[in-house]
Amino acid sequence: MEKTVQLYEGKAKKVYATDDPRYVIVSYKDDATAFDGTKKGTIRGKGAVNNRMSNFLMQKLAEEGVPTHYVSEINDRETVVKKVEIVPLEVIVRNVSAGHFASRYGVEEGIVFDEPVLEFSYKNDDLHDPLLNTSHALALKLATREEIETIRFMALKVNQVLKAFFAQCGVNLIDFKLEFGRLPNGEIVLADEISPDTCRFWDAKTGEKLDKDRFRRDLGNVEEAYQEMMRRVFGEQA
Amino acid sequence: MEKTVQLYEGKAKKVYATDDPRYVIVSYKDDATAFDGTKKGTIRGKGAVNNRMSNFLMQKLAEEGVPTHYVSEINDRETVVKKVEIVPLEVIVRNVSAGHFASRYGVEEGIVFDEPVLEFSYKNDDLHDPLLNTSHALALKLATREEIETIRFMALKVNQVLKAFFAQCGVNLIDFKLEFGRLPNGEIVLADEISPDTCRFWDAKTGEKLDKDRFRRDLGNVEEAYQEMMRRVFGEQA
Repeated sequence: MEKTVQLYEGKAKKVYATDDPRYVIVSYKDDATAFDGTKKGTIRGKGAVNNRMSNFLMQKLAEEGVPTHYVSEINDRETVVKKVEIVPLEVIVRNVSAGHFASRYGVEEGIVFDEPVLEFSYKNDDLHDPLLNTSHALALKLATREEIETIRFMALKVNQVLKAFFAQCGVNLIDFKLEFGRLPNGEIVLADEISPDTCRFWDAKTGEKLDKDRFRRDLGNVEEAYQEMMRRVFGEQA
Repeated sequence: MEKTVQLYEGKAKKVYATDDPRYVIVSYKDDATAFDGTKKGTIRGKGAVNNRMSNFLMQKLAEEGVPTHYVSEINDRETVVKKVEIVPLEVIVRNVSAGHFASRYGVEEGIVFDEPVLEFSYKNDDLHDPLLNTSHALALKLATREEIETIRFMALKVNQVLKAFFAQCGVNLIDFKLEFGRLPNGEIVLADEISPDTCRFWDAKTGEKLDKDRFRRDLGNVEEAYQEMMRRVFGEQA
């Protein structure tokens, strides 16, 4: 399959059309942004880490019954995925307090929740991705009630699968962001990526952060953390 | 029943203990604040309007099966209510887009929703009352799942009753904020107030605002709007 025109360039990825209208090619960049795009930088090797890790996890989720947009990996940075219409909801699942949850509600990081917290934001850069609940999403006609139920169910299933997988890698899955897309037939599938850009990973023994918070918070060893997560996921030979 | 010590002074009300530990006396002030307390002013006569209107509506709601904290009106500004532990959730019901809904999600005011929008904020001045959803409220242990279900059910019932009542007064009930309290036996009752401070009222014919937005937005005729709402609710003789 060949890339034709570039359809879109985001903060961390480019998307190209292909000669088959059902598919697009995603190309992962090393560019990193944070805080609503106000902080910018480069994390060398990030594109390859995120591409390979995301593809691996999407395949694992598909085996567990979660439909995804993944089709096939072309090379270290490029992947064929199904063309979807992205549902304009950022879906965040939290197992432990961190990030915006901690700052917004005035609690410390590291509180383990009795059950996962699930939240939606309206994916809209101009509005700074405001938090919303199901009744807001319905009022704004961002998705149907049925789609939101499907997304909620799939997000919790993804959490179950990933939490168990990362535990085997010696990593606590603190929280993560998902996006979902609609196929032409209306089916909802998991889209976007699952990577250290979109998840918080804390080493299970030391609590060390192994994700984009190292970039956001200037903690140093950013590239090393991404490479360490590759080793955890793919084993020592990666 | 006699006031003893002042327990609390809020932005628009004072609360006094009484000689009976089951009850407190609420005293409504003419003070008005907006925008997180940064705008301050006085609306002459507001205390009496809010006290009388809130008591009238609470009694109406009790007749319709919604338990409330209301006990008895002492005078124009003072009312005996049951002493409750306030559940730290601001419960907002919206029938039409306005205020924060419109600004937060980038839509115009005046969009009529197919079904009511219900939202919770964490009642916490230091954090500026951040929006939250049910799973956040549970994670923060602000209320039990059962309490949240009760509150949701009661809030929608309040909306049904008030919307129909205000329609008879020639007023569209756009949105409103409720607070709930726990009695010593754990029962959840409607608390706080229902008034032009806590509701958006638009004249059904002209769309004219008859609520605190006249103060927030410097629209003039603020006191007149409160008095007009009294006439609508109590009839011409009020």
